[in-house]
Amino acid sequence: MNLSDYLTSKTAVVEQALSDLVPAVDERPMTIHKAMRHSLFAGGKRIRPILCVATAETVMGNEVFDKYGDTDPVLVGLITTACSLELIHTYSLIHDDLPALDNDDLRRGRPTCHKVFGEALAILAGDALLTRAFQILAEMQGPLPCAPAQLATELSKAAGTTNGMIGGQVADLEAEGHSVDADELHYIHRSKTGALIQASVRMGAVYANAGEQDFNSLSQYGHEIGLAFQIVDDILDVTQTSEALGKTAGKDGEQKKATFPSLYGLEASHQRAEQHFADACGHLEHFGDRAKWLRALAEKIVNRTS
Amino acid sequence: MNLSDYLTSKTAVVEQALSDLVPAVDERPMTIHKAMRHSLFAGGKRIRPILCVATAETVMGNEVFDKYGDTDPVLVGLITTACSLELIHTYSLIHDDLPALDNDDLRRGRPTCHKVFGEALAILAGDALLTRAFQILAEMQGPLPCAPAQLATELSKAAGTTNGMIGGQVADLEAEGHSVDADELHYIHRSKTGALIQASVRMGAVYANAGEQDFNSLSQYGHEIGLAFQIVDDILDVTQTSEALGKTAGKDGEQKKATFPSLYGLEASHQRAEQHFADACGHLEHFGDRAKWLRALAEKIVNRTS
Repeated sequence: MNLSDYLTSKTAVVEQALSDLVPAVDERPMTIHKAMRHSLFAGGKRIRPILCVATAETVMGNEVFDKYGDTDPVLVGLITTACSLELIHTYSLIHDDLPALDNDDLRRGRPTCHKVFGEALAILAGDALLTRAFQILAEMQGPLPCAPAQLATELSKAAGTTNGMIGGQVADLEAEGHSVDADELHYIHRSKTGALIQASVRMGAVYANAGEQDFNSLSQYGHEIGLAFQIVDDILDVTQTSEALGKTAGKDGEQKKATFPSLYGLEASHQRAEQHFADACGHLEHFGDRAKWLRALAEKIVNRTS
Repeated sequence: MNLSDYLTSKTAVVEQALSDLVPAVDERPMTIHKAMRHSLFAGGKRIRPILCVATAETVMGNEVFDKYGDTDPVLVGLITTACSLELIHTYSLIHDDLPALDNDDLRRGRPTCHKVFGEALAILAGDALLTRAFQILAEMQGPLPCAPAQLATELSKAAGTTNGMIGGQVADLEAEGHSVDADELHYIHRSKTGALIQASVRMGAVYANAGEQDFNSLSQYGHEIGLAFQIVDDILDVTQTSEALGKTAGKDGEQKKATFPSLYGLEASHQRAEQHFADACGHLEHFGDRAKWLRALAEKIVNRTS
C-alpha cells in the first residue's frame, strides 16, 4: 500500500464517522445542522484525524484495523477521537473566516459558512461544532484503552488560550500591522496551528496508551510537523493562486500578518520547513517500520502545494 | 441560615473558584484573558452553579461542605462541576450579545464584551470560555463520586443543538418577526434557557451519584424551574426598566421575539410561572427538609425582579 491508498482508505473511514457523529440535516433546528455540515463536508483533507489514527497504529501496530472489527469499541473510540480534532479544526475555520476576524469569502474552494448562512448562524455553527467535539469524546462507550477525560484534556489545552489555538489567533490578530520578533512569530505558529497538529499526534498516543518514552518521542514529532505545517502555509499564501489553495491567496501580506517568509524570506522558510521535517523523522527512529505512515505524512505536509 | 445567607456563602465559594479556574490577566496573551474575565466577573447571580451545588447537597446531605475540607477532591470536584455551567452560560451571553445576534450594548449593567474589546476578541473570548468549561471537567482530580465524562455528556447535550441551548438560539432567531405556535415557543424556552438550568440540577445529581428515582425527580424539578425561569425572563423584559435589569429592556418586542407574554398575555404568563413552580416543588416532596434550598431557589427564580 502506498500513501495515496492509505489516505484514501482512512479518509473514507473518517468521512463516514464524521457524518454519523453530527446531527442529520433533517433534525430540528435544520439550518444549524446544514451550516455545520456545509463547512464540515467542504473537501477538507482530514490531516488531523489521519495523523491521530496513524499515531495510534504506530503504537498499537499497523494491523489494528484488521484486528478489531468496525463495531469494536477500541476501533470506534479511535475514530471518534480522530473526528473530535476535525470538529475543532472546522469550528476554528468558520470563526476565523468571519468578517470580524479574517473576513474571508472562500474556503476550500467554496463560499464560507457566513456567506451562505449569515453571520449569526456561522457563529452558532462554530459553537456547535466545538461543543460537539467534546460531546463525542464524553459519550464514547468502552471498554477503551484510555479514559475519555485524558483525551478531552489534550484537546481542550490545544484548542484553548495559553499556548493553544485561541491564544495563537489572538497573538496573530494583535501582530497585524506590527513588526514581530522571532519569539513572537514562534509563539503564534506553535499556538495557532502547531498545538492542534501536535494534539492530533498526542491524542493518538494517549488513546493507544503509549509508554512514556514512546509518548514523548511522538509528542516531539507532532511539535515539529506542527511548525513545518504553518511555515508551509505561510509560503503557499505567497506562492500559490487562490484557485490552487481553495481560499484567498495573498491575504497575509494584505493584512500585514506576521509570517515566516515576511521575517526570513522564502528561501530560509523552505530550509526551515525541511529542518523541522528532518527533526520530526529523527524522533520516529526507534519505531522503525511501524512509523512508516507518520514519516510519509510528515513528508506530505512539507511538500504539499495546497 | 436563611436563603440570603446561603446565597452569600455559596456565591463567595463560586467566585473564588471561577477566578482560580480561568487564566490570570497577566498570562499571555493578556487581552483574551481580560475579555473572558470582563464578562465572567460582571455581577452574574451564579444561579446555575448554586443550583448544581444545592442539588448535590440534597442528595449527599446538607453537611457536605462541613464534612469535606476545602481541598478535598470531592468538594473541589463539585465546585468545579458547578463552575463549568457558569463558563458555558457566560460564553453564551457574549456570543448572544454580538451585533450579528441580539446586538446588545449592555449586560449586567456593564458594556458588553464586544463593546469593550471589539467583535473579534468577543467571539474568541466566548470560544475560550466554552473550551475552558470542558477543560476544567476533564482535568478534575479524583477520587470523585462520578466519572468526569458523565458530567461532560450532560453539559454538552444541554449546550448543543438538538434540544440544547444552541438549538434554542437558532429557533429563537428564526422565529423573529413570525408568529409562533405554542409548540414552537415551548421548544425555544425548553432549549434556549431550560436545558442549561436543567443540566445544572442534573449535573449536581450525577456528581452526587443519585439513585435512579432521586435522579428522575431532580431532573423533573430542573425541567420545571427552567421553564419558569424563561417565562419570568420574558415577563421582566416587558415590565422592568433597563436599569433594573442591567440589560436593555423591551428588546423582545422590538425584535419581535417569540415570548410567553406575547402569545398568552402577562396574566396568563404569571399563572404559568407559578404552576411550574408548584410542579417543581411537587418533584421534591420525598426529599423532605433536605431539599429546602432547592425549594427556596425555585421560589426566588419565580419571584425575582431582575
